[in-house]
Amino acid sequence: MAATNAYAAMDPKSPLGPFTLERRTPGPNDVQIEILYCGVCHSDIHQVRDEWGGSIFPMVPGHEIVGRVTAVGAQVTQFKPGDLAGVGCFVDSCRTCPNCQAGIEQYCDEGMVGTYNGRERHTQAPTYGGYSTQIVVDEKYTLRVSDKLPLAGVAPLLCAGITTYSPLRHVGVGKGHKVGVLGLGGLGHMAVKFAASFGAEVTMLSSSPSKEADARKLGAHHFALTSDPATMKQLRNHFDFILNTVSAPHDYSTYLNLLRTNGTMIVVGVPPSPSAVPAFDLIMQRRSIIGSLIGGIRETQEMLDYCAEHNIVSEVEVIPVQQINEAYERMIKGDVRYRFVIDTASLRS
Amino acid sequence: MAATNAYAAMDPKSPLGPFTLERRTPGPNDVQIEILYCGVCHSDIHQVRDEWGGSIFPMVPGHEIVGRVTAVGAQVTQFKPGDLAGVGCFVDSCRTCPNCQAGIEQYCDEGMVGTYNGRERHTQAPTYGGYSTQIVVDEKYTLRVSDKLPLAGVAPLLCAGITTYSPLRHVGVGKGHKVGVLGLGGLGHMAVKFAASFGAEVTMLSSSPSKEADARKLGAHHFALTSDPATMKQLRNHFDFILNTVSAPHDYSTYLNLLRTNGTMIVVGVPPSPSAVPAFDLIMQRRSIIGSLIGGIRETQEMLDYCAEHNIVSEVEVIPVQQINEAYERMIKGDVRYRFVIDTASLRS
Repeated sequence: MAATNAYAAMDPKSPLGPFTLERRTPGPNDVQIEILYCGVCHSDIHQVRDEWGGSIFPMVPGHEIVGRVTAVGAQVTQFKPGDLAGVGCFVDSCRTCPNCQAGIEQYCDEGMVGTYNGRERHTQAPTYGGYSTQIVVDEKYTLRVSDKLPLAGVAPLLCAGITTYSPLRHVGVGKGHKVGVLGLGGLGHMAVKFAASFGAEVTMLSSSPSKEADARKLGAHHFALTSDPATMKQLRNHFDFILNTVSAPHDYSTYLNLLRTNGTMIVVGVPPSPSAVPAFDLIMQRRSIIGSLIGGIRETQEMLDYCAEHNIVSEVEVIPVQQINEAYERMIKGDVRYRFVIDTASLRS
Repeated sequence: MAATNAYAAMDPKSPLGPFTLERRTPGPNDVQIEILYCGVCHSDIHQVRDEWGGSIFPMVPGHEIVGRVTAVGAQVTQFKPGDLAGVGCFVDSCRTCPNCQAGIEQYCDEGMVGTYNGRERHTQAPTYGGYSTQIVVDEKYTLRVSDKLPLAGVAPLLCAGITTYSPLRHVGVGKGHKVGVLGLGGLGHMAVKFAASFGAEVTMLSSSPSKEADARKLGAHHFALTSDPATMKQLRNHFDFILNTVSAPHDYSTYLNLLRTNGTMIVVGVPPSPSAVPAFDLIMQRRSIIGSLIGGIRETQEMLDYCAEHNIVSEVEVIPVQQINEAYERMIKGDVRYRFVIDTASLRS
């Protein structure tokens, strides 16, 4: 067992602060990783504040982890000390259900084991995430990370990256498609990069005119102000796909009407209340809505390899862990371009 | 011009009554049809009562038409006098937009021309439907009808039939799929027949225990009472597809949760108010919702041919047109098994 410096929430109301946890000694299939960077996901805030219920305290958040392998178990074949490695939103699953067998462990019939705020399958011990200096993870749930990219920008790929890459691939976005990305935040900025990289014609849909310049820098070909009725009217029946990243309460109808015949709205944001869907909006052009949750291990690896090959990383603002509480407040105001990433050197000093 | 006996609504409030209309003399591409039967669709009531707005009066409803060809224009090649023929929900469209070119005229960019309560493209004359003794329709929008099936049972195939056949084909329902059909009415009873015929394992989802016997007779392998919490719990993550025919206000969430990973809910019913969709229900198993509107001419012909080959017709209660106002009242109460069909002999006597 190794004592590990971390930052934790002790309860839903208090700010996060220093905490020490014990990581297990690596078993035969385990990879021990010295964490270098950890991205800060909006779901960290939801869970720290127990907004989804069932939170386990103390909680060490963080599921966008990159680091360097420091030790491996005897049966580990894919990693050796010194390698770069990544850990995403889950560290285990049942491994036997049809979904696990199909490589979509995120939909495991028994439920995946979250990288934090979960419980290990056999011991029921709580899992602790990446706001810490090291982690021990089964090889099967550990990702290979290229040394070609700046590591801080790679960290958010493990959640924000795969959350947008996976559905764009699932629905087959590519050349000749018109894709709208709704909301320019941690997810939206990755969606723009991926959709453009896949060859689609990308439009950023946003209510903030101030985001146009950034959207274009990220690769969007067009910018559409959702608060402008004339623009919205002009875009009726326009898109093959809209990737909807908005997690504030909103009506899907406005955006469904921007889809052409057979168009699909991909939902990856989770508003706190259900969204209203008029059946007519779906029926009149055979439109659809599909949800998508992160991605499986195999596809996450594919995405990381794709990013290394195409030089894609997240836009990040690197912070010491001591600024995490302030970072949460800024995220809630949308004041981050486009992901905070903790430099865990700040946990070692 | 030929004077034609019909039944019409003169305004949204009055009962339907006798009316005389003029049909055009068949042009070179037209088929003149003596109407034998016309199905009564729930949308007839919505439009007669102007519940969707924009209704045109006097209105002669009816878009589930079968009859016999009495004359054809000089350039007509697919029909000759004496043939059986059918007319569905639309009698024209722009013919040039990508959707028309693709054979999905129901999604025509300029809007299809409804068989009734529409306006002819060139003359702007109102269209009159099948509660009448004859109709004149362009050959391209006229369907071939087999003489193998009882004609009264064929009429509802032109709307209720294609409305359920088309999306089941579009999503690829077949052997090995578990399909739930929500609601046993005009649409639902056809959905059960088609899904079972395509090889799927079909479950009727209904809140009326009294419908179990009928559902099984129609081909459902299972019956699930939606008001029973234990049944609903047991069916969580169960279906590959649910065909939702309900047009009363309802929450989609309950039924989305019955879909397995990658499962799809097909919406063909139009509730008067938007349905609430929690994003979590979609995201957690990559579920989707898709809408579908009737079907194109090519697919409607395919459906009619399939029905002739597989001996599939609608279950009907044949009425004289003089009972139409009473029939409407019974339909609103759900008191019909499962489609009223007007015998237009009652308009000739």
